[in-house]
Amino acid sequence: MTGLLRREPHVIAAGIGLLADSAAGQAAKVTRVDWAPPMPGTDADLATVLADSRRAGANALAVQRMLAARALLVDVVQAGPALGLAAGEFLHAGPPISWERASGPMRGALMGAAVFEGLADHPDAAAGESALGIVSLEPCHHRGAVGPMAGVVSPSMWAFVLEDPADGRRAFCSLNEGLGKVLRYGAYSAEVIDRLRWMSAVLGPLLQAAVRRHGPVDVTAILTQMVQMGDEAHNRNRAGTLMLLRDLLPDMVESGFPAADIADAARFVAGNDHFFLNLAMPACKLALDAARDIPGSTMVVAMARNGTDFGIQVSGTGNPWFTAPALVPQGLFLAGYGPADANPDIGDSAITETAGLGGFAMAAAPAIVRLVGGTVATALAATRRMYEITLAEHPLFGVPALEFRGTPAGIDVTLVARTQILPQINTGMAGKVAGTGQVGAGLVTPPAEVFPLALRELAGRVPASPPG
Amino acid sequence: MTGLLRREPHVIAAGIGLLADSAAGQAAKVTRVDWAPPMPGTDADLATVLADSRRAGANALAVQRMLAARALLVDVVQAGPALGLAAGEFLHAGPPISWERASGPMRGALMGAAVFEGLADHPDAAAGESALGIVSLEPCHHRGAVGPMAGVVSPSMWAFVLEDPADGRRAFCSLNEGLGKVLRYGAYSAEVIDRLRWMSAVLGPLLQAAVRRHGPVDVTAILTQMVQMGDEAHNRNRAGTLMLLRDLLPDMVESGFPAADIADAARFVAGNDHFFLNLAMPACKLALDAARDIPGSTMVVAMARNGTDFGIQVSGTGNPWFTAPALVPQGLFLAGYGPADANPDIGDSAITETAGLGGFAMAAAPAIVRLVGGTVATALAATRRMYEITLAEHPLFGVPALEFRGTPAGIDVTLVARTQILPQINTGMAGKVAGTGQVGAGLVTPPAEVFPLALRELAGRVPASPPG
Repeated sequence: MTGLLRREPHVIAAGIGLLADSAAGQAAKVTRVDWAPPMPGTDADLATVLADSRRAGANALAVQRMLAARALLVDVVQAGPALGLAAGEFLHAGPPISWERASGPMRGALMGAAVFEGLADHPDAAAGESALGIVSLEPCHHRGAVGPMAGVVSPSMWAFVLEDPADGRRAFCSLNEGLGKVLRYGAYSAEVIDRLRWMSAVLGPLLQAAVRRHGPVDVTAILTQMVQMGDEAHNRNRAGTLMLLRDLLPDMVESGFPAADIADAARFVAGNDHFFLNLAMPACKLALDAARDIPGSTMVVAMARNGTDFGIQVSGTGNPWFTAPALVPQGLFLAGYGPADANPDIGDSAITETAGLGGFAMAAAPAIVRLVGGTVATALAATRRMYEITLAEHPLFGVPALEFRGTPAGIDVTLVARTQILPQINTGMAGKVAGTGQVGAGLVTPPAEVFPLALRELAGRVPASPPG
Repeated sequence: MTGLLRREPHVIAAGIGLLADSAAGQAAKVTRVDWAPPMPGTDADLATVLADSRRAGANALAVQRMLAARALLVDVVQAGPALGLAAGEFLHAGPPISWERASGPMRGALMGAAVFEGLADHPDAAAGESALGIVSLEPCHHRGAVGPMAGVVSPSMWAFVLEDPADGRRAFCSLNEGLGKVLRYGAYSAEVIDRLRWMSAVLGPLLQAAVRRHGPVDVTAILTQMVQMGDEAHNRNRAGTLMLLRDLLPDMVESGFPAADIADAARFVAGNDHFFLNLAMPACKLALDAARDIPGSTMVVAMARNGTDFGIQVSGTGNPWFTAPALVPQGLFLAGYGPADANPDIGDSAITETAGLGGFAMAAAPAIVRLVGGTVATALAATRRMYEITLAEHPLFGVPALEFRGTPAGIDVTLVARTQILPQINTGMAGKVAGTGQVGAGLVTPPAEVFPLALRELAGRVPASPPG
């Protein structure tokens, strides 16, 4: 006790600030601890899951597999044969959804895809799915794919094929159409359909020829460079797009395709700073798929939205989705649109945040605030906050502004439940009326409810007595 | 006095810290002012120049002209006819220099250029300039051009032509050869000469065709974007190079040149992250040339080094160079090299710092520290320190990490003399032995002596009595 009395008093305060303020007013040194109670109703499940002796080892393995994954662009192919899609079989973003529960932009994209496939003459929402020729709807994630925004993939579209060279696992994603009036934002006008036809007739085959001539393109290496160049790989893919173009253009030139087609394709990709998003997403999926199905792991391996529901999947619980109604993003709007026009959160692109990019890497992409709102300080704060709920710092994604500290990666359900800090996602915003297209971009989080649901399932799977 | 006594005491301390430390130890609020005496021997000239009634208006005009300048890439041409260079007439970086006083890398580049031009069979330093067929040596700056490192321009080389659309003024720069064993770092081996021949036979004509097909390329717009993408346009030009390639490749494809040449050129540019430096430099020269020859202005309009001397030019003093021996950069070395191998500072590339880029913009390019040494914190501090000696913040070069504050631009000789803060330059380092090539990259400043020399000339030009 005498030692204690000889030292300067130092107050450590948690919870509301009254005590800390008073102590500071009396010139005491005060350290404020940012503490909040866990999510309501999660105490018992948290106690069970945190006591699971498998947890630490399982999460370490999940992290190790996620961080070890590498992604190479190995081919560009037509989606139908590659993903096993017959006529009328469509994929979509997010957890499973029916036509009846689908939001405006999801229906808009499905109608546009039906016209593009020649299954319907006109986009006609009232007609319903069977009149549109839609035979089945399935999440992209269930076929090893991801799709931004509505994420609709139909058999005639072309897709990037990414592969992890260590084990040959693959992930797929459609080709990016650009911004504004595009199918993935729910638009389906003639220009949208015409663009999709050109992409299938020219762009896809040309990219295929270039990738096959070039050999695998190291997407992970481009992601690593992007984070040094102001991209966070969700809503800024500017440097990534330029590096992809740099890598593929010489082989496009030597592909034997007509010069006019090559020039058109180069201008199309060069004019769309988001083109690389559709490579960043499947690269992230490859990394997270590597971490799936590890008993006891509390790491999130997918976050995805279909415009109605937000769903997460967790390593230790396998294939079930934990879902709740998607929130509406807050942000900046294109001219002529406002908050009332925005659809709830939509797209598989939150796979980037799940892997430590996107909203988790905004400190590396301060210029993102010009697109999604906020200040550079809030972008830095968003990344710093995400370290509170993640299991790792990604060694390949060093944030320059944080002295090259790795981005926060690997969301832990228990950390989210304990801290009530929700994952930070940045995202485009689709108009809620089918046919509108993009209305803005902003920030959003998952609905908090999905984490207690996942925790409940994790708790139910903890063995009654210690194994072995 | 009673008001003063009622307030908390607040100490403002300048100079050495003894008083401030003691006051702080007694719990007084202390503000430390970072003050230093002016450069030795400059008191009288400073007083004269600061009292010049023309100064404020002249500097405001210089700043306005510098900031208003725009740079378009309008053509790519052979240097001889464009710059009025006959056989044996060579340009070089920095202030004027003779063969006798030229450093190793400068002699190396001149010898290599002589071989490239067919004036000499072998690089032979002992032979001297006339045996090498060198008729004259003149600074690039004297012909409206800039050249990185040795900056040697010979008649058969090709050059970028940049133009300010407001007044048709032009600036020129050679094409960038890449890194390592290259002429501008003083190397002259067969691979160096062969590369120069390919650049003149294929790359130059192809770029000419592409630029003429494309129409003017907005170099200023690319510079503006680069600063959002981690480039500072001196030793990081990665995003800039990619954007140039993006803009020109479709027209290269449609140029009618053989596909193999187009692919070779695309791979050459894509493989050289510094290619855009040779566009950034003449863009900066256009901006600073706009601010030349304003009587009473104390703004620096050129900083340039020839490997022996460092020279500056000032708006209010016209064409004279104020020179002193160039310093040796401190930094990081390529494998096999160390500080003893480095030549003193060389190149016209400090025109980027003069215009608010390069070392002045390192806060926008934190990854630069991996190349030139230091930490992200020191990069931020370097930019912040440069605000102390500059007249403006460049509205087109918003630094993301500083909440988009413009980079410090427009060095004021009087501010440098008053604060003793020297401009921060980052630079490549050439081997001091002719033929070596690049040995590293690092940080350097001008020799302090050039600023009192400029100040003396400025003082001598102040009218005896107020004009008008």
